[in-house]
Amino acid sequence: MRWKQTKLKKLHKITIIGVGLIGGSFAKGIKQAGLSDSVIGYAKNEANLKLGVDLGVIDGYSTDMAEAVIDSDLILLGVPLGAMQSVIKEMQPFLKADVIITDVGSAKVSVIEAVEAAFGYLPENFVAGHPIAGKEKSGVSAATADLFVNHRVILTPTQETNPQALETVTNLWKALDASVMTMEPHYHDEVLAATSHLPHLLAFSLVDMLNEHHDLGNVFQYTAGGFRDFTRIASSDAVMWRDISVSNSKAIAKWLKNYQQALSELIVKVENQDSEALYSLFEEARLARDKHIVNKADL
Amino acid sequence: MRWKQTKLKKLHKITIIGVGLIGGSFAKGIKQAGLSDSVIGYAKNEANLKLGVDLGVIDGYSTDMAEAVIDSDLILLGVPLGAMQSVIKEMQPFLKADVIITDVGSAKVSVIEAVEAAFGYLPENFVAGHPIAGKEKSGVSAATADLFVNHRVILTPTQETNPQALETVTNLWKALDASVMTMEPHYHDEVLAATSHLPHLLAFSLVDMLNEHHDLGNVFQYTAGGFRDFTRIASSDAVMWRDISVSNSKAIAKWLKNYQQALSELIVKVENQDSEALYSLFEEARLARDKHIVNKADL
Repeated sequence: MRWKQTKLKKLHKITIIGVGLIGGSFAKGIKQAGLSDSVIGYAKNEANLKLGVDLGVIDGYSTDMAEAVIDSDLILLGVPLGAMQSVIKEMQPFLKADVIITDVGSAKVSVIEAVEAAFGYLPENFVAGHPIAGKEKSGVSAATADLFVNHRVILTPTQETNPQALETVTNLWKALDASVMTMEPHYHDEVLAATSHLPHLLAFSLVDMLNEHHDLGNVFQYTAGGFRDFTRIASSDAVMWRDISVSNSKAIAKWLKNYQQALSELIVKVENQDSEALYSLFEEARLARDKHIVNKADL
Repeated sequence: MRWKQTKLKKLHKITIIGVGLIGGSFAKGIKQAGLSDSVIGYAKNEANLKLGVDLGVIDGYSTDMAEAVIDSDLILLGVPLGAMQSVIKEMQPFLKADVIITDVGSAKVSVIEAVEAAFGYLPENFVAGHPIAGKEKSGVSAATADLFVNHRVILTPTQETNPQALETVTNLWKALDASVMTMEPHYHDEVLAATSHLPHLLAFSLVDMLNEHHDLGNVFQYTAGGFRDFTRIASSDAVMWRDISVSNSKAIAKWLKNYQQALSELIVKVENQDSEALYSLFEEARLARDKHIVNKADL
């Protein structure tokens, strides 16, 4: 039904490189919507791929890259950012000429550069993408077909991108009930550095600083719901966040410094017990958050 | 029933100074447990007190301080930290000799100093306290009798504190199903600066920095569940957090600086794309959080 709604031409074969939470949820959604004759997984860990088949996430799999990607109409790269370059190089010799390649990395410039490095140019059918969805839980067993429902997917086409490839990728995500938009790749990386990468690194840093602190001992026992929510993202996958930090290091370092500057100004206000300035800062933040965040859908 | 369980001598009159979320929830819990013949509210805003009576939070009220506290067996100070000193001075002339005074302020040293300043000494029946419970919503209409169930209440007695007064306050909180512990006042303020005040100020600062940022525009539209949880505490009451920041400024400034130092070290790792160091930091934080926070009860 969805297939008809989106007027999407049914694909013959889709390959998911890296069948984790995101790649697996995309695969499961595609399968359930009947958008491809077959959805094939590729990974190094065969046990994980078998689990993917058992859980109805993929139709089949291969641990041989050539076999996995051959004759594929569309390849989705669902591996950590740190593995993108080697995976792209590995599959590049076996691709069908008009294959559409897309990805789900949380930083976009580094992926675009990796594709360009592997091909020697930017293929017109490459469409970089980033679904803003996730859980702290990772892995194929956490994959669900409805992970992207009402979630934003940002595609970051370049001047080289073929509009038809962009449309196909857009329609696939729309068929999973995602809300799709496009963005310039560098702007994407800035925005995500500020709104996602920065808070994750701040949460990791706070937990790390307080963990068995020599002055305080185990202070986690005195924390409440506010701390639990604030640090929820510090339970995220360390490999993924290592790769994001490395892949988007320039923008992240910039926003960490911007934040340090904001903290320097705050420290002055706290040390001066500047009631008025503190009240203004807190009240403006509260109003901004209540306006923009609280009542929005769970994007 | 609870009254019998805790072997708590029934009180004749309890006065709640400042009938907001915390003071109101304490009042409502005491009333429902039948621990006092009457629970009387005092505030400047009469409409709010009337609402408290209508909602079954208090039995009656007065906007006259002398009338509110006269003959009271126990007074709970539920006003913002910034109002503590003036309220204590105002009520001091009208108190019964053996009245127990306690409070619910989020910083303890400043309240103890305010009581000492008002009396000229520390009364033996003063027991400083801090229930670690709250919501973003404030005010008497948010008050519930079960707000403190399974939540920690930290009492910070001093050398002057009468053990019987401490026991009475302890038993009242226990009757509301709170988990009561004692702590040295300065240590309390350090621990709370690190685990509660610091994350609140970090969340306020992040929202404030990103609000209509000149480089990015409205970036809140691109945020997801992680950002929403991370900044939930930035929707907290600005007056309360202004007062906490001023009352516990020394400890908060110290922990903001500790955190800045941690960020400085992180920035070096990000700029150097130091995969190994970043992975270690994230993984240790994740393990620490999962060990201490995720599976703990909702304290």
